[in-house]
Amino acid sequence: REIEVTEADIKRFAAEFDPQPYHLDNEAAKQTAFKGLAASGWHTAAIAMRLAVECRPFGPQPLLGLGVDNLRWRLRVRPGDGLHAEGELISVATAQNRPQGIALVKWTLYNQQGEAVYTFTPIGIVPKRPT
Amino acid sequence: REIEVTEADIKRFAAEFDPQPYHLDNEAAKQTAFKGLAASGWHTAAIAMRLAVECRPFGPQPLLGLGVDNLRWRLRVRPGDGLHAEGELISVATAQNRPQGIALVKWTLYNQQGEAVYTFTPIGIVPKRPT
Repeated sequence: REIEVTEADIKRFAAEFDPQPYHLDNEAAKQTAFKGLAASGWHTAAIAMRLAVECRPFGPQPLLGLGVDNLRWRLRVRPGDGLHAEGELISVATAQNRPQGIALVKWTLYNQQGEAVYTFTPIGIVPKRPT
Repeated sequence: REIEVTEADIKRFAAEFDPQPYHLDNEAAKQTAFKGLAASGWHTAAIAMRLAVECRPFGPQPLLGLGVDNLRWRLRVRPGDGLHAEGELISVATAQNRPQGIALVKWTLYNQQGEAVYTFTPIGIVPKRPT
């Protein structure tokens, strides 16, 4: 499953949450480090959540997190890019007296060229398997 | 400056980026750990970016980041909550042969009760002062 990011999506998200020239104005963006319009990093982050939710890494269990470690924007996301997500289970920790454990999944978003554009590792709360 | 989060905002963001019962369905949300409708953590994160951009912590310099450390959701954000941001400069690092430095600002979002709901520390790229 891939999500395509359109120029309209980029500008709509940026107008609401990240109103800076890189994300709003094609001409002004050319003069910046991005050398052209690029998605807000928080837009990329939100798309990553959508893809993670659709992956259902814990089956029917919804995704719930305390926070995120190692959130990194690695490459600009351009209008027309198609993004997909891959997740790698890093660790699961449980405590005997608690009904829930902590699962760390490192997610990577790739563009249509197979380039990694974004990584993040949510600190996920997951229920223990019934014994 | 405060941003008020409405129920419609919460559901609109969630429908696009985080379609889970906590954020979409008032009745289903009551049965979850949130005990009622709450904003997606990524919605809160996006609002925090908006507030940070408006703070202009580096004056006219736009905000640009490599990533984020210590992103933590500390309290649910409810419909009707009004959020504001405070930033604390943690560190600035420069290297002699580079025109830019790295600034860490720890941002905290507070609700209208003064409760901290969210913190994050972007790894910001800032230009050196001209010599």
